[in-house]
Parts: sequence; structure tokens; C-alpha cells
Amino acid sequence: MDKLSVVKIGGNVIEDSAALQSFLTDFAQMQGSKILVHGGGKKATAMAEKMDIPVQMVEGRRITDAQNLDIITMLYGGKINKNIVAQLQNLGCNALGLSGADGNAIQAVKRPVKSIDYGFVGDVVGVNNALFQMLLKGGYTPVCCAITHDQKGQLLNTNADTIAATLAQSLSQSFEVSLWYCFEKQGVLENIDDDGSVIETITPQKYKNLKTAQVIHSGMIPKIDNCFDALANGVNEVKIGAPKMIAGISQHTTLTLKDE
Amino acid sequence: MDKLSVVKIGGNVIEDSAALQSFLTDFAQMQGSKILVHGGGKKATAMAEKMDIPVQMVEGRRITDAQNLDIITMLYGGKINKNIVAQLQNLGCNALGLSGADGNAIQAVKRPVKSIDYGFVGDVVGVNNALFQMLLKGGYTPVCCAITHDQKGQLLNTNADTIAATLAQSLSQSFEVSLWYCFEKQGVLENIDDDGSVIETITPQKYKNLKTAQVIHSGMIPKIDNCFDALANGVNEVKIGAPKMIAGISQHTTLTLKDE
Repeated sequence: MDKLSVVKIGGNVIEDSAALQSFLTDFAQMQGSKILVHGGGKKATAMAEKMDIPVQMVEGRRITDAQNLDIITMLYGGKINKNIVAQLQNLGCNALGLSGADGNAIQAVKRPVKSIDYGFVGDVVGVNNALFQMLLKGGYTPVCCAITHDQKGQLLNTNADTIAATLAQSLSQSFEVSLWYCFEKQGVLENIDDDGSVIETITPQKYKNLKTAQVIHSGMIPKIDNCFDALANGVNEVKIGAPKMIAGISQHTTLTLKDE
Repeated sequence: MDKLSVVKIGGNVIEDSAALQSFLTDFAQMQGSKILVHGGGKKATAMAEKMDIPVQMVEGRRITDAQNLDIITMLYGGKINKNIVAQLQNLGCNALGLSGADGNAIQAVKRPVKSIDYGFVGDVVGVNNALFQMLLKGGYTPVCCAITHDQKGQLLNTNADTIAATLAQSLSQSFEVSLWYCFEKQGVLENIDDDGSVIETITPQKYKNLKTAQVIHSGMIPKIDNCFDALANGVNEVKIGAPKMIAGISQHTTLTLKDE
């Protein structure tokens, strides 16, 4: 099977234009088929403020009303996505931007209202594998923003980590997929205060031990759980680290089902 | 050769949500391969005002500075494009939104500064025919916003009429292309005050006569000239009329090189 890298970058890269430029230079040079997934970070909040649109938070979670969805569509789907694509084109990477609505790339349902109504937020239910296969085979690099659709005309704000994991899982039917999560640390750290204490490999057994020893705890647990879910659903490996890891010149943590 | 319809809609359709919905319903039902090209109308000016961004006009022409380009990218490439795509998906049309940067779809150069510096405005220099052929063959309907790129990382605001004409000309190498310009009139009128006086067909000879008789004059001449340029460069026919013409149930004007 051909190899495919699905790379997710978050707000810390998007918001720093030098960091973004450096990342895109590395990304353009990654060999083989690849997909970029990006969020939008805090720019949406700043723009909502600028436009006098209230940002509603419930229990620390942002609610996506119609006006905030417009802002997300303009920023993530427009400004951020198109500028990333244009920069990658300049770097020799034939990037092509997609929301989940484009070519029915990523289908979702509006999150059902239980205790909280999150508004226009999507839970992913499907991926148009044929579209991604056609684009990748044609030499194009899909650049996906964190927006999906419900196939009934409604765009939906969607978690970028989830989009990356779902794409990776879905495309593992046809590719040997590596899923790369770029964040502000060098990887999962043995000691949170020591950037040099990156744990190289985490297997299911090691994960159990790290949780018992409380090296991995609280907010990190659901994230790592999601990574192991992706591995259980066909993804070959998950890599967590700083953006420089994609150039192969920085440490990172590899999650794998294969025991050492 | 397979048939291809390239349909351009302008601000009058984009700005009226009922008109847009009606148009998209008709567009989704058009048979055969098709491409939609849309501008953005006056929404960009309204949004610039809302965000306290000055809109500079020189000799009645809008200047696209960096801030206004951002607005255009957010609106045309983001909000308008993605909502059109999502609505078409709901109508059973597998739409896929593109700026000129996506997949290097439409290449341009920044307009050279002569007497006026228009800012980040693009003059189209090339089309990635292979991309459009791949998408159309795959059953996708490209939806192009009026943004191109210079292949060096710069997005460029570009006239939607020109994009439609250039796409039509370029793809006439592989398709029998009809180019449809939707605007607020039923077609080219014999008598500007009589909406029923639509001229059905204009050939080069008839065009000459209409100019001599001053039925076609002033601002209409460069537009019609551009249409005949497209015909001279391989486009099969150009149709000018109200959006309803694409459903085949309203009058319109057909421009053709074939004398009656």
C-alpha cells in the first residue's frame, strides 16, 4: 500500500506567521501523499470582537451560533485556507483547499442537544474516500479546514483533531497512514517541566503504565485515547510533537499498537 | 466532444438569498458537465465598512489593498463559496469550491502599474485544464470564486466575467463549451425600456449593424466584444440573460459566430 501522511496543525502555528511559513516549507518537502488539516485558533474570537459579534461560552465551551459560524467560514474556509494553499503552491506543493462540503469531502451531523446546545457544531459521520483518492492520485495535496456539512445545506464547525483522525482512519483502507499531531511541545513528556524528557514510543502496555504512574493524566488522557482509537481503526502510527518533527529533525512521541 | 456549461452569476443574484436559492435549484438541474463562477457583489464594501477598513476608489475603480483582499478572500472564497457549495450539495449537485490557488486552478499576474495602481488585482494568464477535466470526469461541479493567484504565494482579486470567459476558452480544447452570463436583464434589448425586446441572436454581422444603429453602445460594447473574443477563441456559444435562462424557460440573447 502507498504511504499517506495526515498532518494536523493547530492555532499555535496558524497564529504565528513565521512559524506557519517554517512549517509550510517543511510540509511542502514531505515525501509521498499527504493531507494537511488546520484549525483556526483564536483568530475567530478576535474577529468576532472586531465585528461586535458576541461569543457565547457555556461551561468553558464555545457555542457556534449563525454569526460565529459565518466568521469561522470566512476565516478558516476563506482567509486561512486560501493563504495556506497559495503559500504551498509557491513552495512547489500542489495544494487544494477543501471544506467538508466541497465534493462532499466530510459529512457530519449537527451535534444533538443534550445538556448543552453547541449550535452549528458537527460530529463527523463519513468521508468521501473516492474524492481524496482521486486528488492524491492526481498529485494534489488536500488542505482541509475544520468545517464539515450535513448534506442538507448546513455548514458545521468541527474539531480539527477529529477531522484529522477520521480522515486517517477512513483512508487507511487504501493507504498505510501516519497521523501527525503538531502542537507546542516536543511530544509527550516524562516530566512536564523538562522539554528534553520526550517519551519516544508509547504502546498500549506502556500507556497503561504511564497512566498508573500519573505521568499521563487529566486532559491528556482523552487525547491519547483518541490516538489509540485511530490505531485500533487502521491507522499505522500516530506521531505527536512540535511542527519541526515533520522534517525529521526533532524529537517526537510515536504511538503504536506494536509492542516493542 | 462532451458538452460543458460555464455559468457566471453576479452580485444581483448573490445578494438576494431567494434569487440565489432559485438559481441554485435551476443550476443543480442543468444536464451535463458544468462550472459555476461567482463574484461577490457589494457585500465586500459593506463588510469593509463594518470592519472600519477604508475602501479606496480611483477614477471610479476599486483599489484592492491588503486589507480589502483579506475581506474578499473571506467573503468570496469563504462565506459565499462554501455556502453555495453546501446548498448545491443539498440539491444533489456534487459541487466543489475553488479559488484560482486551489490545485493551481487559475494563474494570474498582478496587474502592472501604469497610471493607476489597482493593488492586488490579477490578470489571468493560465488555467489548469487537467484539474478541471479530472474533476468534471469524476462527476464534480467546480464552483469558482473570483480569486486567482500569482504562483508565488499571492492571492489576487480578479474579475469574475474574465474568469468565466478564460475558463470557457481554455476548456474549449476538450469540450463543446456554452458560456452563460446571468445578469439583471432578460438579454440584450432592442429597446432598453422594453424588457420584451430581447434580441434572440447576435452574429458578427448583426453586431456591426446594432452598433451602427446605436442599439448597442457605450458600456455594453466592451462586454459584447469580450464575448466575441471568447467565440473567436473556441467557445461554441455565449448566452446572456436572466438567471432563469439556465432552466430554459426564459428568453435570452445568444451570441454566435455562425451567420444565420
